Amino acid sequence: MKKNFQQYRTHLCHELGLKDVGQKVSLCGWVQSKRDHGGLLFIDLRDREGVTQVVFHPDKDPVLFASAKQIKDEFVIKVEGVVVERPAGTKNAAIPTGEIELEAEKLEILNPSLPLPFNLDEPIENEELRLSFRFLDLRRKKLLNALKLRHQVTYVVRDYLTSKGFLEIETPILSKSTPEGARDFLVPSRLSPGKFYALPQAPQQYKQLLMVAGIDKYFQIARCFRDEDLRSDRQPEFTQIDIEASFVVVDDILQWVEEMIQQIFSKVLGIELSVPFARITYKQALDLYGSDKPDLRIAWQIQDVGEVFENTEFKIFREVLAKGGVIKAINAKKASPMVGPAGIAELEELAKSMGAKGLAYIRIEDREWKSPIVKFFSMEERKRLENVLGIEPADLILFSAGPWEQACQVLGKVRLQLAEMTRSVAPNEWKFVWVTDFPLFEYSPLEQKWNSVHHPFTRPCQEDVGKLDSGRYDEIRALAYDIVLNGVELGGGSIRIHERELQEKIFSILGIDKERQKLLFGHLLKAFQYGAPPHGGIALGLDRFVMLLSGAETIRDVIAFPKNRHGVDLLTQSPSEVDSQQLKELHIKLNFPSLDSRLRQEPEIEP
Amino acid sequence: MKKNFQQYRTHLCHELGLKDVGQKVSLCGWVQSKRDHGGLLFIDLRDREGVTQVVFHPDKDPVLFASAKQIKDEFVIKVEGVVVERPAGTKNAAIPTGEIELEAEKLEILNPSLPLPFNLDEPIENEELRLSFRFLDLRRKKLLNALKLRHQVTYVVRDYLTSKGFLEIETPILSKSTPEGARDFLVPSRLSPGKFYALPQAPQQYKQLLMVAGIDKYFQIARCFRDEDLRSDRQPEFTQIDIEASFVVVDDILQWVEEMIQQIFSKVLGIELSVPFARITYKQALDLYGSDKPDLRIAWQIQDVGEVFENTEFKIFREVLAKGGVIKAINAKKASPMVGPAGIAELEELAKSMGAKGLAYIRIEDREWKSPIVKFFSMEERKRLENVLGIEPADLILFSAGPWEQACQVLGKVRLQLAEMTRSVAPNEWKFVWVTDFPLFEYSPLEQKWNSVHHPFTRPCQEDVGKLDSGRYDEIRALAYDIVLNGVELGGGSIRIHERELQEKIFSILGIDKERQKLLFGHLLKAFQYGAPPHGGIALGLDRFVMLLSGAETIRDVIAFPKNRHGVDLLTQSPSEVDSQQLKELHIKLNFPSLDSRLRQEPEIEP
Repeated sequence: MKKNFQQYRTHLCHELGLKDVGQKVSLCGWVQSKRDHGGLLFIDLRDREGVTQVVFHPDKDPVLFASAKQIKDEFVIKVEGVVVERPAGTKNAAIPTGEIELEAEKLEILNPSLPLPFNLDEPIENEELRLSFRFLDLRRKKLLNALKLRHQVTYVVRDYLTSKGFLEIETPILSKSTPEGARDFLVPSRLSPGKFYALPQAPQQYKQLLMVAGIDKYFQIARCFRDEDLRSDRQPEFTQIDIEASFVVVDDILQWVEEMIQQIFSKVLGIELSVPFARITYKQALDLYGSDKPDLRIAWQIQDVGEVFENTEFKIFREVLAKGGVIKAINAKKASPMVGPAGIAELEELAKSMGAKGLAYIRIEDREWKSPIVKFFSMEERKRLENVLGIEPADLILFSAGPWEQACQVLGKVRLQLAEMTRSVAPNEWKFVWVTDFPLFEYSPLEQKWNSVHHPFTRPCQEDVGKLDSGRYDEIRALAYDIVLNGVELGGGSIRIHERELQEKIFSILGIDKERQKLLFGHLLKAFQYGAPPHGGIALGLDRFVMLLSGAETIRDVIAFPKNRHGVDLLTQSPSEVDSQQLKELHIKLNFPSLDSRLRQEPEIEP
Repeated sequence: MKKNFQQYRTHLCHELGLKDVGQKVSLCGWVQSKRDHGGLLFIDLRDREGVTQVVFHPDKDPVLFASAKQIKDEFVIKVEGVVVERPAGTKNAAIPTGEIELEAEKLEILNPSLPLPFNLDEPIENEELRLSFRFLDLRRKKLLNALKLRHQVTYVVRDYLTSKGFLEIETPILSKSTPEGARDFLVPSRLSPGKFYALPQAPQQYKQLLMVAGIDKYFQIARCFRDEDLRSDRQPEFTQIDIEASFVVVDDILQWVEEMIQQIFSKVLGIELSVPFARITYKQALDLYGSDKPDLRIAWQIQDVGEVFENTEFKIFREVLAKGGVIKAINAKKASPMVGPAGIAELEELAKSMGAKGLAYIRIEDREWKSPIVKFFSMEERKRLENVLGIEPADLILFSAGPWEQACQVLGKVRLQLAEMTRSVAPNEWKFVWVTDFPLFEYSPLEQKWNSVHHPFTRPCQEDVGKLDSGRYDEIRALAYDIVLNGVELGGGSIRIHERELQEKIFSILGIDKERQKLLFGHLLKAFQYGAPPHGGIALGLDRFVMLLSGAETIRDVIAFPKNRHGVDLLTQSPSEVDSQQLKELHIKLNFPSLDSRLRQEPEIEP
């Protein structure tokens, strides 16, 4: 072979220290900064791992010195030289290489750089600009560290699951459209005119088919796609840790995931979590926290005070109870001095935005109860309330009365808002909780039909199966579970249906007729007839998990090349227009109401 | 939490042995076979890892025995019982559990099964049937083992690359169309009417952008897509081990890949490979093996015998040499007795199919040279030929005369065919070779333009850069390399261009004008202006690699859910028709020349 070999570098920029003094080395990287000091020229040379200070002496090699003068920020250079100890008083304890510097003997400019459009050391407000220059944005330490963390997390996940006998198996991206969930991305087929692949919203059916195939334990770090309108924490493509296993019960899945997360925290963050995580039912979650994603970092729980008011003269409470509603209260311990009338008003606004008529409260100042409603309470009620809620000076009590779900949810939101107002969320706390026993169905008044809370493959609790025939759909609990971290849903899963008859029954309740069942799910129904084992699994959102672990504010900061809120990659200007010949080959053509060019124009940034 | 816990099984079906005798255990799995013997009922129970024999005694529990009688093949069952040693004479040394059996005490049928459409133990000719019942096909040991192997290979790859400091980074699947390579799969955008994403043919540009971002060492086990007509070893979506690094020369990449493959062989197959692998240039590969994918398991090399015939009277050779052509020969040692006249005719046919006028040969029988052309050789020429080719009794000499490339390629194909005819390829041999110094460009007479041999981002050899200006494009060598295993190209890569000017020059030679450069590659050209480091990489086809390692005959056998040759997933019937509302939302409509229903119909299999 023609010899093109040349050693670019002997070390990375974080490696050199006192142990290397006197050694001849070469480094490559980017010029982070350049400064003159005492007639010398200093360059901070940066690579992925760190920074080394390079020094140029004007007397030792004037030619070299002159060419070093030409260098500008973010030039890519190679420097050869000798490692020397820094003079006393110039050492920098903040970086690993702070005790040495590289005395340059040779310099090669590998590639110059234009001045950057933004500073790499400062936060940048303009995210569109960052995304257009993503190749520079990713040089910023925070984003680089997030990508490193992401790599480490997936590495530990694979390591753990492999050690437990799970096989990673790739399922198709060119998949089948099953328009029962979110909106599909479609891919026109050239070889089958008029037909379309869909990008998978999840590998759900494939992983179930793998269970029927006897794979026993499957996982995949899987790319998934949803063509939904993009909220701040959504991307059209995202990644999930997808797990499925046969011959398992709920506890098996929960235990694996707990151990996996325990290992991630231990190996990646150096934090030891204790397991098992807290487990509460969906009903408990709403009762205590007013949310199916409870943030357990906040100590306050919601309490039912209906008994206190069972014979109350207070009209509002009495009427709610008479209609079968509930009276819920939260005692925000010691919060009263931190929440003035303006704060109360803000919370009331929030409650009203959720359909509540108002937000009753009691502020405890010293021993005095300040409240517009206490005057309607009997002394007996006040005493019982004091007992039930453990009311002490400086507490703030907030009430919500109404139908159970609404009353819980109102106080749930109030609880979060109040915690934020009073800064009651401890930083660096990691509170995991499993929420189980979700309802299987929920009724959509808009569509006038029953929908799955999770998805149609979720198994009902054995005790509730009979209710499928009696039509009491709202009472059926699912063998489904969500995992929640600090009030954020990380993922969810369920034990699945593995019998054709039961699956068909569920489809029918969801309003999917036999013909459509066969068209969309025929393969799965067929598979269930050939020895499908009991199975279940879970999927965890990797992007969101890494976002939380890295302290990033959006999932865009933990994805190398994200789309913006319009689904556009501002760096490559994708999606883009394509040749009409390409469309013709795919047997499609454009279908605009009008060829309004304003609609089709995205803001372009000059390359 | 509601307790749904129930331990399905205590062991897997490969685990039990004499050490467990007397233990009470439970197993779950599929009924592989059932047989009556001596009044007892035996069931081979199978799971992913193995088989355990279960025995039912009619006297011990007649009810249990009766229900066991109901079981049929591929039923999914759970059995509880006691491990007992098999009676002498009934042990089976062929399986790990062959010394014991499970004496059943309790049986639960978890799911019945219809009779299977094919036998899991026998090879099945009808691949379409296999693909329609992929969930059964994957139960076959060969396919299961291929998926296990695939998991192990990717695990070792990740382990090795992580240990070398590579970060696995996910690049977008919803990517940008750059119609310079193969045909793209397109995805219509709902939010940007009239625009399309493309599925990536490779993450090439993204990984180069990651180098500009300072990621230094990147890898990804990446899904790629090409909408090409499908040959037997192609799939519309495939997976590659994608690697890129900064501040590297060719040897760095080659060495990493060699070590990675060495580890795969050692850890997955238990085979120790020695490195470095053989390295030859593209020119040597054609000269010696007539192919840029040489199969080094075959010992025969091609030799140039032009000098022997420099003054020949033999008209055909003389004319070829006069036109600047070459005379190549191969000495297939000892092959003569194995290749009769019919064999020679077959080889000649092959040569002619490649544009050769014929295939001159000499068969050595004892000391006699049997050949239609030897009579035209001088005694001097015969002697020199004997020396140069080392001709001995029983050898078979084959000639090819013509333009260099064609003459080489003809003998290259003949060499492979001859090896097959004479069974000269040793099984279980693993011959890796690097082919380097490919030409940068090749001229397409059809398109009347120069194309890239690899891709437009490939860096020319430094010594040849000057030829970019002098127009001697055919003489420019690339810093490109392919890795070949047993005559199959596993992957290829190159050092890349990192300067905007050089990249623009290459684009121009390829006939991509400035406007189109900006439209398609503007992001990359822009990135090159902001401190792009020198970089290079490689991509290895995972499917093909696993196919070779597992001894599978097609890549479909190492992919869980492959498409057939029409790009159809016969299991899920994808691609499929979609609702017109979906198309409307995507701003497209169908565009058939005619709505010929025959075209649109795929053979359906009843679910």
